[in-house]
Amino acid sequence: MRDAYHEDLDSLTDKLVEMTRLVRSAISRATTALLDADLQLAESVISRDEEVNRLFSEIEASIFDLMARQQPVAVDLRMIITSLRMGTDLERMGDLAEHVAKIARLRHPDSAIPPEVRSAILEMGQIAENLVTKAGSCVATRDVDSALELEQDDDAMDRLHRKLFKTILHKDWKYGVEPAIDITLIGRYYERYADHAVRVARDVVYLVTGSRPA
Amino acid sequence: MRDAYHEDLDSLTDKLVEMTRLVRSAISRATTALLDADLQLAESVISRDEEVNRLFSEIEASIFDLMARQQPVAVDLRMIITSLRMGTDLERMGDLAEHVAKIARLRHPDSAIPPEVRSAILEMGQIAENLVTKAGSCVATRDVDSALELEQDDDAMDRLHRKLFKTILHKDWKYGVEPAIDITLIGRYYERYADHAVRVARDVVYLVTGSRPA
Repeated sequence: MRDAYHEDLDSLTDKLVEMTRLVRSAISRATTALLDADLQLAESVISRDEEVNRLFSEIEASIFDLMARQQPVAVDLRMIITSLRMGTDLERMGDLAEHVAKIARLRHPDSAIPPEVRSAILEMGQIAENLVTKAGSCVATRDVDSALELEQDDDAMDRLHRKLFKTILHKDWKYGVEPAIDITLIGRYYERYADHAVRVARDVVYLVTGSRPA
Repeated sequence: MRDAYHEDLDSLTDKLVEMTRLVRSAISRATTALLDADLQLAESVISRDEEVNRLFSEIEASIFDLMARQQPVAVDLRMIITSLRMGTDLERMGDLAEHVAKIARLRHPDSAIPPEVRSAILEMGQIAENLVTKAGSCVATRDVDSALELEQDDDAMDRLHRKLFKTILHKDWKYGVEPAIDITLIGRYYERYADHAVRVARDVVYLVTGSRPA
């Protein structure tokens, strides 16, 4: 059986994995709230971001505690430092899901999403979920190979992001400036969410190998 | 005279202050590049972001080195941990200045900024510069009172950000969707830049007092 110190390190990992679950659920509900103009669901994303922030504060506290009580070295030190970085990224992902939900709330009872961009937004939401799910299992298993894949997986998000701009800039765009602004911001939120998931995966690679992927 | 350990801690602070100088110069040049459609200046912001990233890598390296060689406790430990957080925020501020410069480059030889929003963008640039300058001196002096002021200083940025949206959503807006998208993104970049400067200041408060401002 493991000593208290290593149990603390394990629980740090567990909390990070739990954060990935919370922000996955957040972006999933935010996407549905956006596409269905579901106010209640949007409100749930906004109110429950507090859980993500609280969990991150717990992670920060245990990191300080571990640092002060132990003298972690080598991989344990990397584990603790990268946990702080991962937690920061995951907390931000929660904020971004909340931003998406706030646009859904702002436009309710209308939908912020014209039919022409529904499929792109739906797909961006699914890619965001897949990326954070994969990042979460990389944090849990420290699987470097699948962590390295996230960079490529994220390309699909960038393609959709460009497609989104093409649609709102097309001469047939008939919804004017306001929906274009909403969609510009929404697209930006999903893209940033995905970037942070990739950063988490890169930190897993760093944690295991001691060097960052090129 | 101070021992090597405390000299290392001091040089950590010096590097963070240098980062604030670099990202201040970056947002200043990016704003001018944007308002004057100055391609050369835009390119200089984009190419020189590398310096910011390199400096942050140095900071990360010295943090690992300090952690591994010493057993920092109390305020030293807080100093090292918050340096990592501040460096992360400052690196991001460099990216955001680069994003602004990239829009200037994308629209060159045209300007991305119609006359109606020039003054707002100019002011957002100035507020961004003031915030990062103040944050930098807080990092150098650990002045908690002035660090606490940044939260209020940032309100001016949020007001301008809302004003920007009012302008592009006004019925008299005659430039269509594309400039509205540019300005939406530009406004977002300045607002995020300012938020990160506020986070740096909050970390100074935490570093000195051991607790985060409410």
